[in-house]
Amino acid sequence: MKTQVGIVGAGPAGLTLANWLRKQGISSVIIEHRSREYSESRVRAGLLEQNTVDILNNLGLADRLKKEGKEHHGVHLSFDGERIRVPFGELTNGRNITIYGQQEVAKDLTDAWLAGGGQLFFEATATKIADFDTDHPSIHFEYEGEAAVLECDFVAACDGFHGLGRKTMPKGSYNEFTVTYPFSWLGILANVAPSSDELIYAYHERGFALSSSRSEKVSRLYVQCENDDTVANWSDERIWDELSIRLATPGWELKRGPIFEKSITPMRSYFIDNMQCGRLFLAGDAAHIVPPTGGKGLNLAVADVKHLVDGLTEFYKKGSTAALDSYSETALKRIWRAQDFSNFMTTLFHKQDEHGSFGYQLQKAKFDYIKRSKSYATTIAENYVGLPFEAFE
Amino acid sequence: MKTQVGIVGAGPAGLTLANWLRKQGISSVIIEHRSREYSESRVRAGLLEQNTVDILNNLGLADRLKKEGKEHHGVHLSFDGERIRVPFGELTNGRNITIYGQQEVAKDLTDAWLAGGGQLFFEATATKIADFDTDHPSIHFEYEGEAAVLECDFVAACDGFHGLGRKTMPKGSYNEFTVTYPFSWLGILANVAPSSDELIYAYHERGFALSSSRSEKVSRLYVQCENDDTVANWSDERIWDELSIRLATPGWELKRGPIFEKSITPMRSYFIDNMQCGRLFLAGDAAHIVPPTGGKGLNLAVADVKHLVDGLTEFYKKGSTAALDSYSETALKRIWRAQDFSNFMTTLFHKQDEHGSFGYQLQKAKFDYIKRSKSYATTIAENYVGLPFEAFE
Repeated sequence: MKTQVGIVGAGPAGLTLANWLRKQGISSVIIEHRSREYSESRVRAGLLEQNTVDILNNLGLADRLKKEGKEHHGVHLSFDGERIRVPFGELTNGRNITIYGQQEVAKDLTDAWLAGGGQLFFEATATKIADFDTDHPSIHFEYEGEAAVLECDFVAACDGFHGLGRKTMPKGSYNEFTVTYPFSWLGILANVAPSSDELIYAYHERGFALSSSRSEKVSRLYVQCENDDTVANWSDERIWDELSIRLATPGWELKRGPIFEKSITPMRSYFIDNMQCGRLFLAGDAAHIVPPTGGKGLNLAVADVKHLVDGLTEFYKKGSTAALDSYSETALKRIWRAQDFSNFMTTLFHKQDEHGSFGYQLQKAKFDYIKRSKSYATTIAENYVGLPFEAFE
Repeated sequence: MKTQVGIVGAGPAGLTLANWLRKQGISSVIIEHRSREYSESRVRAGLLEQNTVDILNNLGLADRLKKEGKEHHGVHLSFDGERIRVPFGELTNGRNITIYGQQEVAKDLTDAWLAGGGQLFFEATATKIADFDTDHPSIHFEYEGEAAVLECDFVAACDGFHGLGRKTMPKGSYNEFTVTYPFSWLGILANVAPSSDELIYAYHERGFALSSSRSEKVSRLYVQCENDDTVANWSDERIWDELSIRLATPGWELKRGPIFEKSITPMRSYFIDNMQCGRLFLAGDAAHIVPPTGGKGLNLAVADVKHLVDGLTEFYKKGSTAALDSYSETALKRIWRAQDFSNFMTTLFHKQDEHGSFGYQLQKAKFDYIKRSKSYATTIAENYVGLPFEAFE
């Protein structure tokens, strides 16, 4: 089997890459470990930056997103029960976010890819990425009990944090950076209309809380919990009670409903400072993890893909490797920004130090400053909706 | 002896207060522990915010400041040898900073106070602030070997971090917040023209450095050193060599000259959350210390005085204690902001984590973001020149 770009992983990164390359006239094949059902049903991120929406739209893959996604023009921030709103569009020349589940994006991209005759092997396990230091790398994989090989010009490892891609990078070809935060998120999905039109991030002396939604009828909410906490500690009643207390503000009421999923997510920052080696390129979670506070994970993956498409297009159309050679460097500018923003949002809204301590006072001072300064509010808005690609040129 | 407002301390806070109260027709007397010579010769801060300049100007006390002070319209920020400039005026509607030594401010204010017939006891040691829970408090002090008492309506303790004022506040009337940073500043004064027109703050893998000036002929420079470091470890040559390395950027040269003062300053953040008790009011360093990185110490003192003058004026002119009652609350809004900004500047430019670590990458991401975002640069400019008083209303 032969193609121009071999892609490991059919998450948003791999699927966006395949569809985008097709539009550029570049062939690719995707190898995905999981089943189609699993990939399309797993509830993950759901916050699309303006850049991500624009990219999907430009690819002609945003029809359902535009119908079913919900554009948010601001975000609510709460501190000790005081709630303020940061508007997006008016602070960023009309840039906004759209709430649309990652699994819906995956569904749309998979449908489009297959409908156009694209090859995608589900439940195919990549076992080896070979010869990426030559101009004829290959991906070895197992599919329906048989060993297979995909020969290609380039390999894009879009296979997530635990994937083969990063493991294949030679020792010493990158430095890694990691932070594990001393708290986690207990997240729920509930069959109830969202309690607010836009997201609410809240600092409370009992800990962080976040109110968001997946659709008109499904709420997605989180509370800060201990790293060694378990779902068993959290009865439905306890969860709703905590959310009510932490998100409370005068004149607002939390809507409760049947919870159909509970899970605990650790909060972690991770990235590596080189995302390529020879003809192997990493994109998305394979190269970086951000805590979910800033909603950046999916969007960083799509931004990586943009730079990779730029590089591959320049190679195939002009024979130049310049943009490919600087892929890491280009992508890392945004990754560092996103790491810093995610860290900022995480430390601003989580209880870390004693409530009332110096650390707390600095958190509160930052919150108060958002109210006082249009510039400061704009830094939050522009990071949240995603800085335009031009900002990093 | 009797007056309306008894003031302990003839630093910038006490002196500004006395002169300003006089303009409002309110009498005061100042008790100062040190000699006039000491107060006017000790080199301290030298960065005046726009608010501070405006206040001194409105008091008619800025004649020499306007002649000899040097207005700066921007600041240079350096990271790993890359230097950028944040302009002030164009980001803040014309607000700037002025470099003019604290001891010069003290000289001008002392001259004005005494020329107008004001009473100021130098080398007078306040021993007790009494009856501040009544409407006839008093300041007991020793002067020329004799015990004396200053009876007054109100006591303003502008007597610095180690002064009597805060010690007099009843236990339990405030909470205190403190941070000691794991590094110090070795500062020098040298008889050499400044190497740049505006200040340079530099992060370098060898540590922080700051280039500033006190006059056309006197440079003030700092390098980050260990908390347990001593001046003896720092020969003139070592200091200039370190400064040259840490401040280096292509096409720029550090001017060396005879060093006539060396000292080590610890970096500390401190504040209390209540600055008043009955008729005792704290202002300036008596109530808060910031690391010098943001240049906020002197300016916070003058801002406290503004709020105190507002309260006292309202009391004497309208008989209302409303503004006096909320003095702490009003002043603390700016103090918290300044604590956060000072902490931000300190953590942005000092070497804390290993060079190249995750912590370092976040510092670098912030520096890069200053380049990319007018909003972010504006937050630095507006904090640096000082937010207008209206911003906190």
